[in-house]
Amino acid sequence: MSLTIAAHAAAQAYGYPLLIKQLLHTTLTQASSQEIVYADRFRYTYADFNRRIQRLANTLAGLGVTMGDTVAVMDWDSHRYLESYFAVPMMGSVLFNVNVRLSEDQIVYTMNHARPKVLLLNAEFLPVFNDIRAQLESVEQVILLNDGEPIDPASLNLAGEYEALLAASADSFAFPDFDENTRATTFYTTGTTGLPKGVFFSHRQLVLHSLSAALGLASSAEHGRLHREDVYMPITPMFHVHAWGIPYIATLLGIKQVYPGRYLPDTLLKLIEQEQVTFSQCVPTILHMLLNHPRAKSMDLTGLKMVIGGSALTLGLGEQALSRGIDVFVGYGMSETCPIMSLSRLTHAQLQLSAAEQIPLRIKTGQAIPLVDLRIVDDQMADLPHNGSRTGEVVVRAPWLTQGYLHNPAASDELWADGYLHTNDIGMMDEHGVLQITDRLKDVIKTGGEWISSLELESLLTSHPAVSECAVIAIPDAKWGERPLALVVLKPGENASAEDLRAHMLGFAEQGHISRWAVPEHIRFVDALARTSVGKLNKRALREQFVDSQ
Amino acid sequence: MSLTIAAHAAAQAYGYPLLIKQLLHTTLTQASSQEIVYADRFRYTYADFNRRIQRLANTLAGLGVTMGDTVAVMDWDSHRYLESYFAVPMMGSVLFNVNVRLSEDQIVYTMNHARPKVLLLNAEFLPVFNDIRAQLESVEQVILLNDGEPIDPASLNLAGEYEALLAASADSFAFPDFDENTRATTFYTTGTTGLPKGVFFSHRQLVLHSLSAALGLASSAEHGRLHREDVYMPITPMFHVHAWGIPYIATLLGIKQVYPGRYLPDTLLKLIEQEQVTFSQCVPTILHMLLNHPRAKSMDLTGLKMVIGGSALTLGLGEQALSRGIDVFVGYGMSETCPIMSLSRLTHAQLQLSAAEQIPLRIKTGQAIPLVDLRIVDDQMADLPHNGSRTGEVVVRAPWLTQGYLHNPAASDELWADGYLHTNDIGMMDEHGVLQITDRLKDVIKTGGEWISSLELESLLTSHPAVSECAVIAIPDAKWGERPLALVVLKPGENASAEDLRAHMLGFAEQGHISRWAVPEHIRFVDALARTSVGKLNKRALREQFVDSQ
Repeated sequence: MSLTIAAHAAAQAYGYPLLIKQLLHTTLTQASSQEIVYADRFRYTYADFNRRIQRLANTLAGLGVTMGDTVAVMDWDSHRYLESYFAVPMMGSVLFNVNVRLSEDQIVYTMNHARPKVLLLNAEFLPVFNDIRAQLESVEQVILLNDGEPIDPASLNLAGEYEALLAASADSFAFPDFDENTRATTFYTTGTTGLPKGVFFSHRQLVLHSLSAALGLASSAEHGRLHREDVYMPITPMFHVHAWGIPYIATLLGIKQVYPGRYLPDTLLKLIEQEQVTFSQCVPTILHMLLNHPRAKSMDLTGLKMVIGGSALTLGLGEQALSRGIDVFVGYGMSETCPIMSLSRLTHAQLQLSAAEQIPLRIKTGQAIPLVDLRIVDDQMADLPHNGSRTGEVVVRAPWLTQGYLHNPAASDELWADGYLHTNDIGMMDEHGVLQITDRLKDVIKTGGEWISSLELESLLTSHPAVSECAVIAIPDAKWGERPLALVVLKPGENASAEDLRAHMLGFAEQGHISRWAVPEHIRFVDALARTSVGKLNKRALREQFVDSQ
Repeated sequence: MSLTIAAHAAAQAYGYPLLIKQLLHTTLTQASSQEIVYADRFRYTYADFNRRIQRLANTLAGLGVTMGDTVAVMDWDSHRYLESYFAVPMMGSVLFNVNVRLSEDQIVYTMNHARPKVLLLNAEFLPVFNDIRAQLESVEQVILLNDGEPIDPASLNLAGEYEALLAASADSFAFPDFDENTRATTFYTTGTTGLPKGVFFSHRQLVLHSLSAALGLASSAEHGRLHREDVYMPITPMFHVHAWGIPYIATLLGIKQVYPGRYLPDTLLKLIEQEQVTFSQCVPTILHMLLNHPRAKSMDLTGLKMVIGGSALTLGLGEQALSRGIDVFVGYGMSETCPIMSLSRLTHAQLQLSAAEQIPLRIKTGQAIPLVDLRIVDDQMADLPHNGSRTGEVVVRAPWLTQGYLHNPAASDELWADGYLHTNDIGMMDEHGVLQITDRLKDVIKTGGEWISSLELESLLTSHPAVSECAVIAIPDAKWGERPLALVVLKPGENASAEDLRAHMLGFAEQGHISRWAVPEHIRFVDALARTSVGKLNKRALREQFVDSQ
């Protein structure tokens, strides 16, 4: 006898597959007149949006796109990108978010690996496209997205211009039901070594990530919480893990959305002000850039909620954001995890603390969102105590983790060894389940048999008033195995000596925040720090530059 | 070529079935020291709760319960009931919530239909149990839940007492993974006609209802929202649609929970005060009872959030609750829908309105929660316009609707005719997707070719200061087909004539709230109104009493 409910289901009962189209029911019924804004160029309603995703589906179908085909997008953050987030998977096709910050060779590699049939191409990337066009093996049709001077698509042998194609297509498309485990999106993660690896997510995974991450964000008692009357603007690329999935969440909640196009600090700040943005997200580098832009000085940022992720938020930057009134907190995730796994959230009682006491709590990696089974384990996969000090590898299960890497069984098996996804992050957890990532498995500094967290030293160093940014990497040491080297960028016009910084760090050691042997004796002042295509510190490049070449 | 992600999954990748046990990951990690309270008798932590559900599973397994077996519970709202909500389905068994307010014959019918192997029985129901014991066909073992004088279970031929059995069982149980579509719960809906019908829900359905209803409750900008620092107490029976699913949500969010046992108004109010309850739920009858209890007069109820459901919240009762500071709003659902479909939610702007203007908004049926595809259709299943006035039947799809009635194919097919679940409610929707149920399909009054909503007349009549409660039913009319008959219960010590009430209603007709022909000419004063086992107006009984018998 079957134990499932199917055994008792009416013939016409609707089983309700978890498909991306189902995110739209309540929004189109309740928020059809709510706005979606594209920089200072265009604004329309969710009702219009709904008609346009149907036009886009008809356009793509007209170009031969069908179930299982892949459609690539090369664009900045735009309403058109949002349209593709829905129309492409809702047809049963796969949305491929191309990382436009990769090298041309890497773009060619990922394109020929994901094999898109159609490419949606922002005109700003025509030079790149023209360079690589001959090498693209699968692309049959290219649709031009153009906000600039008119370009004749036919002259470039392109299928047409997006707006013209949509205008010529019917605004009704019967998006079918299909298996919720159908692949909906794919994109490539660029570690610091090896070829880019393709991750992929199903409809079910994206719907569950949307529900659970939205609940994680909305259920905070007070700060940092997302609600139905927020105004949302992403400041993370939509090609990067679906802009952390928040465009799907914002659409599900029917809130006003603002898409800024290419990231120009002045435009971003102007949009925050003019559109009254209340909820945003970015990596620390962008937050740093925004806060230090002249326009920001005169702006009132009070109440702007910002999730910071991608790399560790330092004490110094957290302090700077909070002092400007930004309700700043951390989200933790990675390309493989769709991405959100945890959020830092302060309780009502913690929000009564002084700013100085709040900042260390706000920059923590935070608490897992609903359904996430997040563990700290030793190398035998045994759980380590949640005492806020024992560090081990972070491994995880959740309903929205990539089930492997596309066409890469060896890396897939390594990712999922022992049935848990391996983050390759080192962290510790306290008795309230608050996670603190202390380092990447490969960036931790092993000295005298103990581990020093490069991230923690970076965070403490940036709390010095003269320090703008810094990176800490390991250098070989005959006696200790490894020792930390701090690479420091000073703020313009500020001055500090290596001696000053060591004294600053010794202060933390005296207060017990770090051990005395963690204080770096090697400190170098540099003009800039190497970063990856998504703005993270590129420690591999820094090691090549400052260690291997010595 | 398969289009699903399984095609690319690592062998050890965890597919993550949506099982009730997965609701506990974050709670046990983040809120292990949070409290669960059982009236004034017992309090313990989520960590203890987790050990006890494992003990309960071992107890049940020791009595022979295994995958696919059914376990029945007859209890008031208690921590033990909550333990069964988790332990029983987590074993792969089916939790059967027995409606203890049914007649003994109906209890026997439902028990022999659901066929539980084991019964968890509160000692207060021993008299009922002894009456029906001989007729129970499937029950092999009975576990006694006893808060009163000690009773020797063996003397009654029972398997044992709950606490003693748990104490004797191991506190570790390996809850297995299985198909998320496995049946988790079952209970019976008692319409006003026919035999009780069994509805049933899977693990997947309960997890998705928890996520979506939690998000619906948490994502309000301001009022009525549930968050991680609330204190929750149900005032709806846990045998009735899983107490609207909120115990699962409260557990998922790791918030403090208070279970009041049998509903005694004095105890309920004392618990609200002592345990600082901030979030609760009940039917209008209970709200009416609480507000009019002497203890309530001296209590500060400001900020208590209360979801009202089960039957329509009237203007008069809504006003009374709001005037006492209760953040009162409506949830809509039914046994077949797990239950939550929609919630009334006011925007920030609407909350600036006067109380008199807010109340009509708060008592609306509200907006669908995420993923709910809720339609108003004509008898050809065509959508009616969302203009706030066209009424039609409410039909629905959501991921958590019963897929039929147990062993009742004819009723199952009727429920799911045309692929949508038929609520048998009549309603209308406005341009913001705000639903207003105007009547039950069978309670609507058809007069002169037009429909009059009995619910609307009831709501307006109770706004008269002398009226305590009322019911409106149809009586046959030679000229008009049907006319409304209002049955009115006056408040103690208050006086009003039929003429006064007609004048009150004519006032609404003059303001355009109702049509002039909706004003009832037939008004009768009665001492009490017949109600069903769950406290709803029993219009069938009222029709028998006041119409058929004439």
